[in-house]
Amino acid sequence: MLTYADAGALPVPADLAVIATPPETVPGLIGAFAERGTRAAVVITEGFNQSDGNGGGEDGRALRQAMLDAARPHTLRIVGPDCLGVMVPGAGLNASFAHIQPKRGNLAFIAQSGAIVTSVLDWAAARGIGFSHFVSLGDTSDVDFGDMLDYLTGQMEIRGILLYIETIRDARKFMSAARAAARIKPVIVIKSGRHPAATAGEAASHTGALASRDAVYDAAFRRAGMLRVHDIGGLFGAVETMAQGQAPSGDRIAVLTNGGGVGMMAVDALIDYGGRLADLSGETVAALDAVLPPTWSRRNPVDIFGDAPPERYGKALEILLKDKGTNAVLVLNCPTATASGEDAARAVIDTVAGKKRCVLTSWLGETAAAGARRMFAEHRIPTYFTPERAIRAFVDMVNYERSQEALTETPPSVPEDFAPDAAAARAVIENALDDGREWLGELEAKAVLDAYGIPVVPMLLAADPGAAWTALSSRIWALDTVGLRRRG
Amino acid sequence: MLTYADAGALPVPADLAVIATPPETVPGLIGAFAERGTRAAVVITEGFNQSDGNGGGEDGRALRQAMLDAARPHTLRIVGPDCLGVMVPGAGLNASFAHIQPKRGNLAFIAQSGAIVTSVLDWAAARGIGFSHFVSLGDTSDVDFGDMLDYLTGQMEIRGILLYIETIRDARKFMSAARAAARIKPVIVIKSGRHPAATAGEAASHTGALASRDAVYDAAFRRAGMLRVHDIGGLFGAVETMAQGQAPSGDRIAVLTNGGGVGMMAVDALIDYGGRLADLSGETVAALDAVLPPTWSRRNPVDIFGDAPPERYGKALEILLKDKGTNAVLVLNCPTATASGEDAARAVIDTVAGKKRCVLTSWLGETAAAGARRMFAEHRIPTYFTPERAIRAFVDMVNYERSQEALTETPPSVPEDFAPDAAAARAVIENALDDGREWLGELEAKAVLDAYGIPVVPMLLAADPGAAWTALSSRIWALDTVGLRRRG
Repeated sequence: MLTYADAGALPVPADLAVIATPPETVPGLIGAFAERGTRAAVVITEGFNQSDGNGGGEDGRALRQAMLDAARPHTLRIVGPDCLGVMVPGAGLNASFAHIQPKRGNLAFIAQSGAIVTSVLDWAAARGIGFSHFVSLGDTSDVDFGDMLDYLTGQMEIRGILLYIETIRDARKFMSAARAAARIKPVIVIKSGRHPAATAGEAASHTGALASRDAVYDAAFRRAGMLRVHDIGGLFGAVETMAQGQAPSGDRIAVLTNGGGVGMMAVDALIDYGGRLADLSGETVAALDAVLPPTWSRRNPVDIFGDAPPERYGKALEILLKDKGTNAVLVLNCPTATASGEDAARAVIDTVAGKKRCVLTSWLGETAAAGARRMFAEHRIPTYFTPERAIRAFVDMVNYERSQEALTETPPSVPEDFAPDAAAARAVIENALDDGREWLGELEAKAVLDAYGIPVVPMLLAADPGAAWTALSSRIWALDTVGLRRRG
Repeated sequence: MLTYADAGALPVPADLAVIATPPETVPGLIGAFAERGTRAAVVITEGFNQSDGNGGGEDGRALRQAMLDAARPHTLRIVGPDCLGVMVPGAGLNASFAHIQPKRGNLAFIAQSGAIVTSVLDWAAARGIGFSHFVSLGDTSDVDFGDMLDYLTGQMEIRGILLYIETIRDARKFMSAARAAARIKPVIVIKSGRHPAATAGEAASHTGALASRDAVYDAAFRRAGMLRVHDIGGLFGAVETMAQGQAPSGDRIAVLTNGGGVGMMAVDALIDYGGRLADLSGETVAALDAVLPPTWSRRNPVDIFGDAPPERYGKALEILLKDKGTNAVLVLNCPTATASGEDAARAVIDTVAGKKRCVLTSWLGETAAAGARRMFAEHRIPTYFTPERAIRAFVDMVNYERSQEALTETPPSVPEDFAPDAAAARAVIENALDDGREWLGELEAKAVLDAYGIPVVPMLLAADPGAAWTALSSRIWALDTVGLRRRG
């Protein structure tokens, strides 16, 4: 390895500077690299955080600003500080201190937290899942989620993008980038700090900003056409689905199982999550009759019994994949002494090969299932630890496809004869402000909605029961007249 | 192995007959064993089910009755038919066709479905979890959940009982046995077929009985003091907790993590499930100040940073275990290049050793976590695949303890001056029956509640808006009078 005393001594400008020196040295180094012609840096160093102890917070913030000031005139862009780094396996780049190297693949994972990055990396490596980019953004002092989305959207080999978000600072930039990205490829987001108890300390300590209300994030993600998952299991499931899965052609799923009980539990989960069980066509039932024992369930879930040999799995799956009313098939396997789970997995792999169909799998148990899980990973068939995780992934995919359709619908234009009564709304709000209030009462809020033509349930304020009766009786007479008119 | 031509030729009565011969031979064999003095049989054979195809259903039911008739005069009890069998590792008994042998332990697992039995068995074996009894009940033609609970309740070495239920036939017997069992040891139940879509075919085909409405089961489980879990992941989690865990002393948990993001996600899950984050005492914060880097979160969750060496894990956990306001600690670890997850696990194990405290763990990732998971299993510290699963297990334990307390409270006795108007209630019901109805209307149902002194919202039926006004105005006058009286 060649070493040089400083940036100025480099024979050519470095494409990327990776800085892991103490905070006070960082602004000078950034300046020197920028002068020499470098246009990108990863700052791994931590200690720029406002919540640092020992009165160092002020210094940290000043240092961060000095770093940004040194970069700006040369448009040097910075990832970090306080990050794990950047990995781009396809370019042979690992500018991080992750414990292992990701495999090359076509998923991009962008996260604020380094710990989430290493956890997903470790899990994905064991599953044989590769990545195009693995980026820990840390403090997002310069490069943020909006920048990364803009950059990744244009990379055609990237199949999907996963984001782990704690806080968004530049909401407008993020939304614009997110909507563009989500139109072109699936974007899955996990946003932690959903409850104030989680964020009060953590988000502040990690990112220097208080996490905002979760409902705002939720609405923004939905509006941008992203799919949100809520926990680590959901994140693993989403990675599995995006890396290995085919999108389902609709919302109806068939369940093929060698155990009636687990089939039932998969259906329980399906209904819990709002999914739909496929009704098998008469043709499909007849075809299954020809290959299954006479006592089979004759409906979905298709129970092929604990003694099911691999051929039975293969033939039944083949038939289900042809069923017109079935958009996806979940194949389940419980360990038995009479048939091998790996042979069953092989039959599923052979049957699915070459078909662009949505097939999900869950092989239960641990020792008995390990081999089959490896085989599915090799053949890019998504497999999940439990049936309910597979069902969750399926319903997530369906919801994602639906939200994409909804987003591309043209909204009805505003009717020409409609004009909101903006003056009335303004009067209500000004009145509240005059009272020194920042909140509207229920009647006031309804008056504002009414001014914009949004239907509201009529509401009257009465000081006592007598007044309520008087007010009510005139309303009821009005209603009665309408009723009589309708009856007559 | 000694073989004999038939039961009559046995030199001594068999303690247990295991029968796996065709259905039509079973009644005769049961009769012969019973005559010879055998008092227990496991019938693995299937084909006694009413929903068998080929017109064999009638025959199946007749055969089942013949089998029961042959057993009854001799009080020979039968497990099955259509079951995987019975395993009692402590007695060296494996009368099943499971693919592996359970380790000896002190949990009993009783399931209707053989596939669930093998799945849990395989998973538990990999985790080093042992069992006292592993019983697949199959058709429950004779021995059912009530019998098993009665039997297991008296076995003092059994630490907890897990039930996988599809259908309960003898509800009264089940409830009586369940209440007795749940007073003495934790009983966890998973009941599949929560939704009609899951049960319409499956439960009928597997057990010969339609699963009843889920709400009834739910209320019954709660009343009996059982804890219900809903999916396979929850079942694995419950086994882990019962096998390895210490019950928490209350509902407040501290989270110790080397990654801020996963700590936040654990708290999100905690709030989702209705748990409570412990407030650390000033003493605890001061003690942690002395052993953690100055920039630590200074609150719960306790973020000890990605570079945390094992000593930092050990010291921080030691301090949290002494905190008076903390009833349990969840320790999290994300893989890093700078510290070993296994060393961290070792530090946790050493710190917990000999202390009867509720400590749960989740080591994220796969390859990096495998060694730590094995170590926790060996030292009976519960460990979960994801932080949210650990949190779910903790909240389940808290809810279980709470429901136990609630059940042992004496309910207030019926006031002496209260007598229900049974005649009024009976009149309403008889009127409905006279109309040929099996359901009561809303007004009728409220009249019945009213007759038993249960407060209901007043409700009046009016045929049209005019009548509604008349009815309403008299009510409002009445209300007004009350209001005036109160004001006056």
